[in-house]
Amino acid sequence: MEKLLFGAAYYDEYMPGERLMQDVAMMKKAGINVVRIAESTWSTCEPQEGVFDFSHVERVMDAMEEAGISVIIGTPTYAIPTWMVKSYPDVLATTVNGRGIYGARQIMDITHPAYRFYGERVIRKLMECTAHRKCVIGFQLDNETKYYGTAGKNVQEKFVKYLRKKFDNDLDALNKEFGLDYWSNRINAWEDFPDVRGTINGSLGAEFEKFQRSLVDDFLGWQSDIVKEYCREDQFITHNFDFEWRGHSYGVQPDVNHYHAAKALSIAGVDIYHPSQEDLTGMEIAFGGDMTRSLKQDNYLVLETEAQGFPEWTPYKGQLRLQAYSHIASGANSVMYWHWHSLHNAIETYWKGLLSHDFAENDTYLEACTIGQEFQKAGSHLVNLKKKNEVAILVSNEALTALKWFKIGAQTGESIVYNDVVRWIYDTLYQMNIECDFLWPESENFGQYKMIVVPALYAAPDSLLERLNQYVEDGGVLAATFKSAFTNENVKVSHEIQPHILRECLGTKYHQFTAPKNVALCGEAAEGASDKEAKIFMEMLVPEGAQVLASYDHYNWKKYAAVTKNRFGKGYAFYLGCMTGKEILEKVLEDALQEAGATIPAERFPVIVRKGKNDLGKDVRFYLNYSAKEQSVTSAIPAGYDLLSGAGVKSGDTLAIDPWGVRIVEAE
Amino acid sequence: MEKLLFGAAYYDEYMPGERLMQDVAMMKKAGINVVRIAESTWSTCEPQEGVFDFSHVERVMDAMEEAGISVIIGTPTYAIPTWMVKSYPDVLATTVNGRGIYGARQIMDITHPAYRFYGERVIRKLMECTAHRKCVIGFQLDNETKYYGTAGKNVQEKFVKYLRKKFDNDLDALNKEFGLDYWSNRINAWEDFPDVRGTINGSLGAEFEKFQRSLVDDFLGWQSDIVKEYCREDQFITHNFDFEWRGHSYGVQPDVNHYHAAKALSIAGVDIYHPSQEDLTGMEIAFGGDMTRSLKQDNYLVLETEAQGFPEWTPYKGQLRLQAYSHIASGANSVMYWHWHSLHNAIETYWKGLLSHDFAENDTYLEACTIGQEFQKAGSHLVNLKKKNEVAILVSNEALTALKWFKIGAQTGESIVYNDVVRWIYDTLYQMNIECDFLWPESENFGQYKMIVVPALYAAPDSLLERLNQYVEDGGVLAATFKSAFTNENVKVSHEIQPHILRECLGTKYHQFTAPKNVALCGEAAEGASDKEAKIFMEMLVPEGAQVLASYDHYNWKKYAAVTKNRFGKGYAFYLGCMTGKEILEKVLEDALQEAGATIPAERFPVIVRKGKNDLGKDVRFYLNYSAKEQSVTSAIPAGYDLLSGAGVKSGDTLAIDPWGVRIVEAE
Amino acid sequence: MEKLLFGAAYYDEYMPGERLMQDVAMMKKAGINVVRIAESTWSTCEPQEGVFDFSHVERVMDAMEEAGISVIIGTPTYAIPTWMVKSYPDVLATTVNGRGIYGARQIMDITHPAYRFYGERVIRKLMECTAHRKCVIGFQLDNETKYYGTAGKNVQEKFVKYLRKKFDNDLDALNKEFGLDYWSNRINAWEDFPDVRGTINGSLGAEFEKFQRSLVDDFLGWQSDIVKEYCREDQFITHNFDFEWRGHSYGVQPDVNHYHAAKALSIAGVDIYHPSQEDLTGMEIAFGGDMTRSLKQDNYLVLETEAQGFPEWTPYKGQLRLQAYSHIASGANSVMYWHWHSLHNAIETYWKGLLSHDFAENDTYLEACTIGQEFQKAGSHLVNLKKKNEVAILVSNEALTALKWFKIGAQTGESIVYNDVVRWIYDTLYQMNIECDFLWPESENFGQYKMIVVPALYAAPDSLLERLNQYVEDGGVLAATFKSAFTNENVKVSHEIQPHILRECLGTKYHQFTAPKNVALCGEAAEGASDKEAKIFMEMLVPEGAQVLASYDHYNWKKYAAVTKNRFGKGYAFYLGCMTGKEILEKVLEDALQEAGATIPAERFPVIVRKGKNDLGKDVRFYLNYSAKEQSVTSAIPAGYDLLSGAGVKSGDTLAIDPWGVRIVEAE
Repeated sequence: MEKLLFGAAYYDEYMPGERLMQDVAMMKKAGINVVRIAESTWSTCEPQEGVFDFSHVERVMDAMEEAGISVIIGTPTYAIPTWMVKSYPDVLATTVNGRGIYGARQIMDITHPAYRFYGERVIRKLMECTAHRKCVIGFQLDNETKYYGTAGKNVQEKFVKYLRKKFDNDLDALNKEFGLDYWSNRINAWEDFPDVRGTINGSLGAEFEKFQRSLVDDFLGWQSDIVKEYCREDQFITHNFDFEWRGHSYGVQPDVNHYHAAKALSIAGVDIYHPSQEDLTGMEIAFGGDMTRSLKQDNYLVLETEAQGFPEWTPYKGQLRLQAYSHIASGANSVMYWHWHSLHNAIETYWKGLLSHDFAENDTYLEACTIGQEFQKAGSHLVNLKKKNEVAILVSNEALTALKWFKIGAQTGESIVYNDVVRWIYDTLYQMNIECDFLWPESENFGQYKMIVVPALYAAPDSLLERLNQYVEDGGVLAATFKSAFTNENVKVSHEIQPHILRECLGTKYHQFTAPKNVALCGEAAEGASDKEAKIFMEMLVPEGAQVLASYDHYNWKKYAAVTKNRFGKGYAFYLGCMTGKEILEKVLEDALQEAGATIPAERFPVIVRKGKNDLGKDVRFYLNYSAKEQSVTSAIPAGYDLLSGAGVKSGDTLAIDPWGVRIVEAE
Repeated sequence: MEKLLFGAAYYDEYMPGERLMQDVAMMKKAGINVVRIAESTWSTCEPQEGVFDFSHVERVMDAMEEAGISVIIGTPTYAIPTWMVKSYPDVLATTVNGRGIYGARQIMDITHPAYRFYGERVIRKLMECTAHRKCVIGFQLDNETKYYGTAGKNVQEKFVKYLRKKFDNDLDALNKEFGLDYWSNRINAWEDFPDVRGTINGSLGAEFEKFQRSLVDDFLGWQSDIVKEYCREDQFITHNFDFEWRGHSYGVQPDVNHYHAAKALSIAGVDIYHPSQEDLTGMEIAFGGDMTRSLKQDNYLVLETEAQGFPEWTPYKGQLRLQAYSHIASGANSVMYWHWHSLHNAIETYWKGLLSHDFAENDTYLEACTIGQEFQKAGSHLVNLKKKNEVAILVSNEALTALKWFKIGAQTGESIVYNDVVRWIYDTLYQMNIECDFLWPESENFGQYKMIVVPALYAAPDSLLERLNQYVEDGGVLAATFKSAFTNENVKVSHEIQPHILRECLGTKYHQFTAPKNVALCGEAAEGASDKEAKIFMEMLVPEGAQVLASYDHYNWKKYAAVTKNRFGKGYAFYLGCMTGKEILEKVLEDALQEAGATIPAERFPVIVRKGKNDLGKDVRFYLNYSAKEQSVTSAIPAGYDLLSGAGVKSGDTLAIDPWGVRIVEAE
Repeated sequence: MEKLLFGAAYYDEYMPGERLMQDVAMMKKAGINVVRIAESTWSTCEPQEGVFDFSHVERVMDAMEEAGISVIIGTPTYAIPTWMVKSYPDVLATTVNGRGIYGARQIMDITHPAYRFYGERVIRKLMECTAHRKCVIGFQLDNETKYYGTAGKNVQEKFVKYLRKKFDNDLDALNKEFGLDYWSNRINAWEDFPDVRGTINGSLGAEFEKFQRSLVDDFLGWQSDIVKEYCREDQFITHNFDFEWRGHSYGVQPDVNHYHAAKALSIAGVDIYHPSQEDLTGMEIAFGGDMTRSLKQDNYLVLETEAQGFPEWTPYKGQLRLQAYSHIASGANSVMYWHWHSLHNAIETYWKGLLSHDFAENDTYLEACTIGQEFQKAGSHLVNLKKKNEVAILVSNEALTALKWFKIGAQTGESIVYNDVVRWIYDTLYQMNIECDFLWPESENFGQYKMIVVPALYAAPDSLLERLNQYVEDGGVLAATFKSAFTNENVKVSHEIQPHILRECLGTKYHQFTAPKNVALCGEAAEGASDKEAKIFMEMLVPEGAQVLASYDHYNWKKYAAVTKNRFGKGYAFYLGCMTGKEILEKVLEDALQEAGATIPAERFPVIVRKGKNDLGKDVRFYLNYSAKEQSVTSAIPAGYDLLSGAGVKSGDTLAIDPWGVRIVEAE
């Protein structure tokens, strides 16, 4: 990327009247240099089957080109026009709830030939109209693609074929591996394969979801191949990934394997939405950024994030700017708002853009102007920021899905899922200012990290567990949590003593576990902690050479360990046998980081420090104040200058940071 | 009406044995002078297709005529017999959940020709049998009619024809007005019109609900026309309207436009159910009464209200009587219980009548005897009570529906709907003893009120907003709340600065809003209030000439106003930019009432004062004690007498009111 | 039974590898002498239609026979193979939610001829293979059979035929009895009978559920007849009954009439699952045991209970043993775990057996070894324990179902159902150490009890109520609660004064009831109680000769009684007109027990005392400590010895009981 992109999604299609020139002027004032267009406008650009009208797209490209604003073209395929459903009702996905009704976006069977036929044609027509344009810098394939629960007869038939291949036509192997004998689910002939939507077998169910995720990879690959036929060398291909949604971006996306799907892209893209006002912490910005950057181990695009957002998100003074620099500090090369204006109709009327429905200047827009001006000034020092992190977190869609089938904790009470454990780990590291990359089971760069944290790797092939053993033996530090290594990749529980293959590096084992009631932790890792409770789930650890960092403080469980540490080969392996409060987790991670020889900054949340090296080869350090109180930090960069004010900064200088403010220091 | 009606619904059809003469005797003892019969008994009076048997109806009319008790005949159409569904299964409404299963009442497609055919025939037969009878004083069309979610293919086809007419066949206009371009919902040919049950477009969805409400108007008009062919001049036609149901009558009925539907009636009727025991406040009685009286600006009938009601409603001593006079105090000409006895089977077994299942005298029945005797004595002073209120509340089904699509407050947390705002306003006025009428967008009598309160008029045509401006300019006082004037009648948000056209009279504007977190109010309207919290939703008001009555007490919002007051023309316009506690609202309303020159009684809830002029032209004042403690008031009528005791009352006399008691003073 | 059975369900079919000999060795070490096999393995033993393979069954029988371990054979019918559904999709039950999807167990129409055809064939094949085997001591029919909501066209047609018979073809009688006139539900021709799944008539709905329960009786009778053709005289036929499930066994099973269904069995069987750890009270063990023992007034089998169970149930030290003796103390002749090992796949992966997934010895298994050794030593003193209880509780499926249609309490707030009342009674008696039997409406042995407690007998035929009157008149003590005698067996409310026929023996009546708000009790039964609140529901009792034990302490209800006691004939009848705290209930029950001349032990929960007479004719007394603290009791047996330690025990000796411990004393 040559410059930081600052922009918004722009929809000429949705305007209540002629606005284009006024909008371009307001964009210029705000320093906006990119817009994303065309995405989800199929019914406008192909009003009737085979009738195309790209006039909105053309006039926006004309205006932007004239104004020197770049354009990203989104293919319009994630929302289908009424005429398609009228003629081919079965393009609507059949899910566990039956065939859907037309209305929302993302309701089609992404494998359906009719949908694919029309999709390909409209993409080609759009490419013919846009790919040659100077202003067009890249393409976004579809939007937040998922499989939408598609599970019709056709999809299930594909799945059975997939299984025949996976098991080499050996039905006995499938029955054994999935444990289908249970409750008489055994399948004794391929033609007896039952409707998988009703299965209560977690192995079969998880495999089907894995297969469904692969449909997304296939779909994006198909679109990518079409787009590549048209696009120039200097144009990128991206996609707008999103995350598990809990009213905002939260964790690993259950319905897409980002690592696989990203292969179709030349640059990773993402949308990140997060709580605001008092609840703004930067955690989702950092989490989503770290994960997206790790996909291709490179800079990435923030294709959507909130401007005013939901009513409860209207940002306080300073927050929009703090958020923008937080994205950049994670290695983003763009900050793009969803969206420019606020919609006057339809379901997202209250997902508010930079402008309110009145198109007038408002506090949020005015803060965007500040950001835009600063980006113009300092952008060349911030673009293409490279990070070299010492710590990585290993995440797995397979573990996530398996733990959806088998929730962690009490079967009839409080329980949690995979992303709760991932965020427990991530958020604690974030608050400690330990920057992380992410790894996936297929990642090949384990060795580049001093420390790997493994939250709840419930389902994993033996080979992955052996690689982790090897990683420790070779000198790495591993910190794994409860519920790791429990089942193989087919969600078949190991019949070896747990934690199965990791038992070797961890030097600990267990035969039993429970959901803790009134159980505290004791021992060195719990010392001084205000919250010593064992939470949600606990394994009764029996050290086999490992050192005990914490034990269970309960009359019935006191003989068992809760947290252990083990020297293995040249490295160390830590194991958290239960969920704990953040203080205990922090203490264990600190121990691990020290053994790993990793850097532990002095600053703690709400002051967040993020680092990188810029295109000029200089170290850049961001100090982000996630609080309504002024904070101060001591600069750790020997000598440099404040990138935004231009003032010189010496090592040891005290830097004051405004409420919801940011300071950026570049080393000399 | 010549006399106060006091009665109950009576179902000879449901009796476990022969009871008629005993029941008539018990009715006479209780002073009951009217029964409502026949409603919902279709399967009894037409046991097989085309076979009619009105013997229950006949024998009850005979007995009542003999006893001098009047009869209201209800058409039986709101519950259909099994034989109809067996032969014509598609008379069951197809809703968003598909075709229903037979069982409950109110499950048919009220537009279906088969249902209409049989419905017309049974009504005609019933009319032939009843209309000429001396005891029959009027007819009730159907019962609590709604559209029951009917949305089958036939109904949707009617809807498309309705839209073609509304938009003069201009599909572009429809797409533009409803914003259907969004998410590719644009409809480019009428024959592409999608199944509207799945729509996520609030404009289209709200229009469909408006259309569905019009089916109720049409249905009642159709029944009214049939009944009119038979009924005498002295017989009325009414309907049993009901309200949004929250375990009891609560607010504006979402599924019926009462104002439109009432055109088919000669007198408005209603059912009102309300909490009881400690939770009895009279609010629902007053709210439902004020609204129903306003429909035709005349007296109305309470066709159903609770006797014993739900188990948790069994009235305390005095409450049944207090309730009865509260209905009369609102201008009701009847108090009729649902129902006489308690059902021995079926779903409403625990919706208990005046009599329990045992038909014995009980405390509630005995209190009804007291009421009946008092009505006989004082009824001629209470019937046809006319009210002349200074204040009106403007309500709108369109605003209600729009705010169902777009709830007020956080999108992912606490939110409220239209009736919460309506009741916030109404209940506060009620507790201040400010009696109100209701207005609807089509009402033409704005000018008769000193003050109009406008809660959350979210969706409104420009013409209505302009009428409100004019009303203020001409000297009226307007008090409007947040979320008013935001969209037009098609739920398209204005692209003018908010609050759009009302900005003129209000002298205030805003560009942004949020859901408050830890935001208080400060300023004169908040002074001394124990609850200063800004609740649910807040607009950042910028006065343009208006006086600030309250501002936001929060570091980030302190520059914005929360409540404003503006002189405009000869009147005043108040604006509440956020939801508040009742004390602040009361203070603002008091200010407005004073500017309007309206009377503000000294009494406050739990003492409720209601006023009217009786048929003798005399002022009547009700003092209602909604508490378990004795209360006293000072009579404000120069000279008069206690209608129930006959004692003289002078101005300034202290009147004691028993717990859950009532005093009624008539001026000389 | 010749010996106590100690065992587990064993599934060779589900093993990840060859384990049989190792498992047998571990079983022998644990003293296990019985396994239950084959249940739910249809897809394994009939892999394709008509192809049978009982090799798993054979090899397990071989191994067990060799090891001297007995075998119980379960018929495999409660989970159907995929091939059946593929060929005959309509074997899946059609319920109120439509036709199901294959996957879970217990989803078929148990009346479907195709299912019955295949079911009979596989049972016969299994019997041919197993019935002659020496190790096979008995058969379990199906498993936890219910009707699975089956309500398809065929089932409804059977139901209409059942109704024609019940009402002797008299549709008027049916309409009258069920009150179908209400809301036009009257059925005027049998061919008009509507889809009963949609009914809102509680009488019709409850009758349909009663009919559905009878399908279970019929189904088990059918299986029993088949099995009887093959089994030897010394082999028993049992079934695994279960209870209303609230995350664990809770109360009377709504979907099966155990009393009727047990007729197909030669010995009653049951599964009992209960909370554990801090929440272990023994209540469910005692409740389930007392009920199952009462079915055939004989010893019974615990065919399933938890070993490790759910994660949150992993037992504390001592608990598994305490549980085992608690079962025996109720008259169980077996303690069998579900299941031996823990499943490596599928939905019950976390319903953990004696062994974890690792098959290693663990704390729970080791405690089972202790139990097994003790059973071997002392079992002959514990088997066939007979009980002679003085108190019985009358339960009724009809009352339960009726109170599901008409919940107790507020219609729009807090309400409870039948089993809440049953457990309120049972748990209080349990904590008082009053051992109970259960009675059903059809039981003929009322006269053997000194006292009968009747919780919420809402629906009952007159004849039953007359029998209760007679019971009291003859000298019995009756303690009945609110909501008794309210409707007849057709859920038609009596039109007599309540409590209808029981009014005679109770000497009390009421006309009204309510859901109490801030109502306390006063009077002798409430004296000293810390919780005096009237809860959920209250009837306004008017004594007609009865003594008032408690009245309502509330200004509006103070004239009414809450609890009464009446001398009637030679007996006493107590009536609880409202729900109370446990102290008040205990006081009333104590009064009743004293009048009945029943024994009231000095011990109270957490010390539980259970009594019986063993095969040697000696009195045995169990002292169970349901707490984490040591407890002590004074032996009440004149002279005897500690069955587990062999030490002598004299009357008046203080016996210490370990935390979660047990002492058993046998009289000399």
